[in-house]
Amino acid sequence: MSSSDIFIGETIGTAILILLGGGVCAAVTLKASKARNAGWLAIAFGWGFAVMTAAYISGPLSGAHLNPAVTLAFAIKDGDWTDVPIYLAGQLLGAMIGAVLVWAAYYGQFQAHLTDKEIVGGPGAQATSAKAVEAQEKGAGPVLGVFSTGPEIRNVVQNLVTEIIGTFVLILAILTQGLNDKGNGLGVVGALITAFVVVSVGLSLGGPTGYAINPVRDLGPRIVHALLPLPNKGGSDWGYAWIPVVGPLIGGAIAAGVYNVAFA
Amino acid sequence: MSSSDIFIGETIGTAILILLGGGVCAAVTLKASKARNAGWLAIAFGWGFAVMTAAYISGPLSGAHLNPAVTLAFAIKDGDWTDVPIYLAGQLLGAMIGAVLVWAAYYGQFQAHLTDKEIVGGPGAQATSAKAVEAQEKGAGPVLGVFSTGPEIRNVVQNLVTEIIGTFVLILAILTQGLNDKGNGLGVVGALITAFVVVSVGLSLGGPTGYAINPVRDLGPRIVHALLPLPNKGGSDWGYAWIPVVGPLIGGAIAAGVYNVAFA
Amino acid sequence: MSSSDIFIGETIGTAILILLGGGVCAAVTLKASKARNAGWLAIAFGWGFAVMTAAYISGPLSGAHLNPAVTLAFAIKDGDWTDVPIYLAGQLLGAMIGAVLVWAAYYGQFQAHLTDKEIVGGPGAQATSAKAVEAQEKGAGPVLGVFSTGPEIRNVVQNLVTEIIGTFVLILAILTQGLNDKGNGLGVVGALITAFVVVSVGLSLGGPTGYAINPVRDLGPRIVHALLPLPNKGGSDWGYAWIPVVGPLIGGAIAAGVYNVAFA
Amino acid sequence: MSSSDIFIGETIGTAILILLGGGVCAAVTLKASKARNAGWLAIAFGWGFAVMTAAYISGPLSGAHLNPAVTLAFAIKDGDWTDVPIYLAGQLLGAMIGAVLVWAAYYGQFQAHLTDKEIVGGPGAQATSAKAVEAQEKGAGPVLGVFSTGPEIRNVVQNLVTEIIGTFVLILAILTQGLNDKGNGLGVVGALITAFVVVSVGLSLGGPTGYAINPVRDLGPRIVHALLPLPNKGGSDWGYAWIPVVGPLIGGAIAAGVYNVAFA
Repeated sequence: MSSSDIFIGETIGTAILILLGGGVCAAVTLKASKARNAGWLAIAFGWGFAVMTAAYISGPLSGAHLNPAVTLAFAIKDGDWTDVPIYLAGQLLGAMIGAVLVWAAYYGQFQAHLTDKEIVGGPGAQATSAKAVEAQEKGAGPVLGVFSTGPEIRNVVQNLVTEIIGTFVLILAILTQGLNDKGNGLGVVGALITAFVVVSVGLSLGGPTGYAINPVRDLGPRIVHALLPLPNKGGSDWGYAWIPVVGPLIGGAIAAGVYNVAFA
Repeated sequence: MSSSDIFIGETIGTAILILLGGGVCAAVTLKASKARNAGWLAIAFGWGFAVMTAAYISGPLSGAHLNPAVTLAFAIKDGDWTDVPIYLAGQLLGAMIGAVLVWAAYYGQFQAHLTDKEIVGGPGAQATSAKAVEAQEKGAGPVLGVFSTGPEIRNVVQNLVTEIIGTFVLILAILTQGLNDKGNGLGVVGALITAFVVVSVGLSLGGPTGYAINPVRDLGPRIVHALLPLPNKGGSDWGYAWIPVVGPLIGGAIAAGVYNVAFA
Repeated sequence: MSSSDIFIGETIGTAILILLGGGVCAAVTLKASKARNAGWLAIAFGWGFAVMTAAYISGPLSGAHLNPAVTLAFAIKDGDWTDVPIYLAGQLLGAMIGAVLVWAAYYGQFQAHLTDKEIVGGPGAQATSAKAVEAQEKGAGPVLGVFSTGPEIRNVVQNLVTEIIGTFVLILAILTQGLNDKGNGLGVVGALITAFVVVSVGLSLGGPTGYAINPVRDLGPRIVHALLPLPNKGGSDWGYAWIPVVGPLIGGAIAAGVYNVAFA
Repeated sequence: MSSSDIFIGETIGTAILILLGGGVCAAVTLKASKARNAGWLAIAFGWGFAVMTAAYISGPLSGAHLNPAVTLAFAIKDGDWTDVPIYLAGQLLGAMIGAVLVWAAYYGQFQAHLTDKEIVGGPGAQATSAKAVEAQEKGAGPVLGVFSTGPEIRNVVQNLVTEIIGTFVLILAILTQGLNDKGNGLGVVGALITAFVVVSVGLSLGGPTGYAINPVRDLGPRIVHALLPLPNKGGSDWGYAWIPVVGPLIGGAIAAGVYNVAFA
């Protein structure tokens, strides 16, 4: 693959991943969305099929990493770090583009959600601390949740462990695709399997932290959240931002190590 | 493919697509349906499997476009416009037949929904303006929603942008099928992948407008809604009708352009 | 295929189909089931995967018709009626065995549901007509619904039309499998596609009548319902029983005709 | 396959199976989980994709039995018991590791659930018998349910029959994979089919007992539940523990017998 194909593939693919992944969060949580309150199963399938669609489209160009933890794991497995910077650049750029597209597609829903008196407590809601916290929970919290992940219970060790475990499962499944491909041209079916692995991790390990399991999936949209002119949007929770970056990288590295020892 | 195979394939295929797609909307929203209130996940999977079933059946005859945005994109990609009118004619006719079949399958449910006193406010409900609006929302609105899409928030620019983005993702995935087919006879698996791409677009980008992402999916049933003798059915919302026609065509054209530049 | 393989395959396959299909109805509707109120999406996926599992297991023995409408359609398509009686005998026997297995697996749930005072209105509930009707709706109705289908609105013409349309879609998809198999050994993927076609028909066309779309799926368990010693079980609704037999046969015959004219 | 590959494959695979399977139970039932109350469909898909992911990863090493009932059935079918002890050892060890990982991933959720005053009735709740029972139901019961299965209605015969029937279906589907593989290198698609068979058994036959259908899936986590230092955790229900061990083994043996008679 040429460097430009990799960069274009990862940018388009990650943009579609975050557009569809952030999109399902917006669809399920924002006011004036037809899919509001569709529940966690919709979130889990939404992210799974987001990965499938993005991998399917970008696979022929870049191999569809779409995730720095995947790129890191392949680099460790193959001992080849040549294209890593190009992958990472495309992934971060794509994630930011995807988050902007979510905002464009749900523009009215974001406005309605953040300015609704029932939700944010009226124009003066930010004036007092207690009301501001309530507004944060009711209005700004779900909006940040469309962009980035956050834990139900803040506990650095547990949050990190949960992200490590979830990413480990995802990456080990991706690395073993080569072993499962018995000369069948796995591509298409592989995208399907990966989709359902992502649904699985979401259903089973997403409860505590919202399963970033991908550094740019969290960081790219968080940057866009900080930059976008959203009313009453509140903070971008930068204090948590390192965990969904570091946890998935550790999980990916462990998966590559286990693969090299037990499977290679 | 012969012209008659294309026309028959697109007519049968699009009729099945709209029968199953409109059917799931009727199943989930109408009174006296066993599936009532099954929720957005049912809608999204229902439309996805509608596409799969229709594509699977009509694929051997016409290649299963079933959507003018698909036909437009292939024409742009291949530079061949010969069969475009036959495709479009079959698609529009099929969409109208499908909408009539939904009405036949759910005949009693439509009658019950539109004449139920609890829903439409009694026989005199249309007499006063306020009550008529209420009846529209409670009874006629969902019935129109079985046929055609409509936005949660009316905003021409946003509604158009949402339809463009959703269709862009769908068509780009369809165009890249050729690249993913590694001599495997993609047909069957391709229908499955396309189904889940449609589920994905529905879950993630359907919240604001109900994701027409197909001009005839919206226009055909809307014409049938205007013609059918349904009691208290209200208007067919023709003011919105151009958006789910124009938006998907733009989205398909952009996808074909991106494909020709980045993937071809 | 030998006659004995056909008979054994259809018996085992249809038994598993009805065990899993009736099982999901029991799981979702009966008291003291962990899956109670899981909703229509669970019903639709449950029946779809029931077909997949049964088809996968019995396919190598009998080709997995599991449905007289399928057998009829293949006989019309191929002009070969030799094995039709063997198929039908195995299907009816299997459907009855499957219904007995549902009763065995959910024995305590049936007892609890039919004798629960909150549901059936106490031991004297059958004494007065109004209470008996209420008990029927609350207790016996759902129990019959585990075995057989019934319409939300009783209308012979509409009920028949709905069953014809639903079966037509199912059978046309099954008949076109041969056209979609591009030398790939379709078997496994075909079972998956058929599963999702069944989910599709359930989600989209199941609302009015509960989608029998298979004569023995309704008749076999209805016979078992009439024979089983269930307390307070009420009648078996024999007045409706001919519709889910005749409708699917008509739908299958029409599909075979359309196939022979447009696809062959 | 070498003995060490079998042991490592079964240990890793069963650990991932129980991590994801127990994880979805934790996600849906524990306090402070984003997926709380996602319902039975989430449980059924969660366990299905858990099997798919685990089978996909461990397949190249050990053939992915992950279940003593599968190992027993293959031993009966092939008349070869050589590797059975290695399979069983890996499976039990893996199941215990998986249960510990669930505890690690949901550490804060377990703590919150078991110490929440609303749920367990306050610090003194265990003091009186009635309150202790209530606490068991509200707090400790769901926590045990993350690890092991339990019946809705305690009835040794029915509970055993339900587990036998569910496992019979699962194992017969696994045994017939070889017949469905028409030289296609079934591996990947087989993992998908098996996943949906598990979803099917869960949706259709999980209502009465929670479908262990795998001895180590129940026994391994139950041992871990007994050992882990969880506050207010209550008993591990050892009186029921033999049923989800014996039932699945009987079901697997019957499936192997049926296979050898009717399919081989």
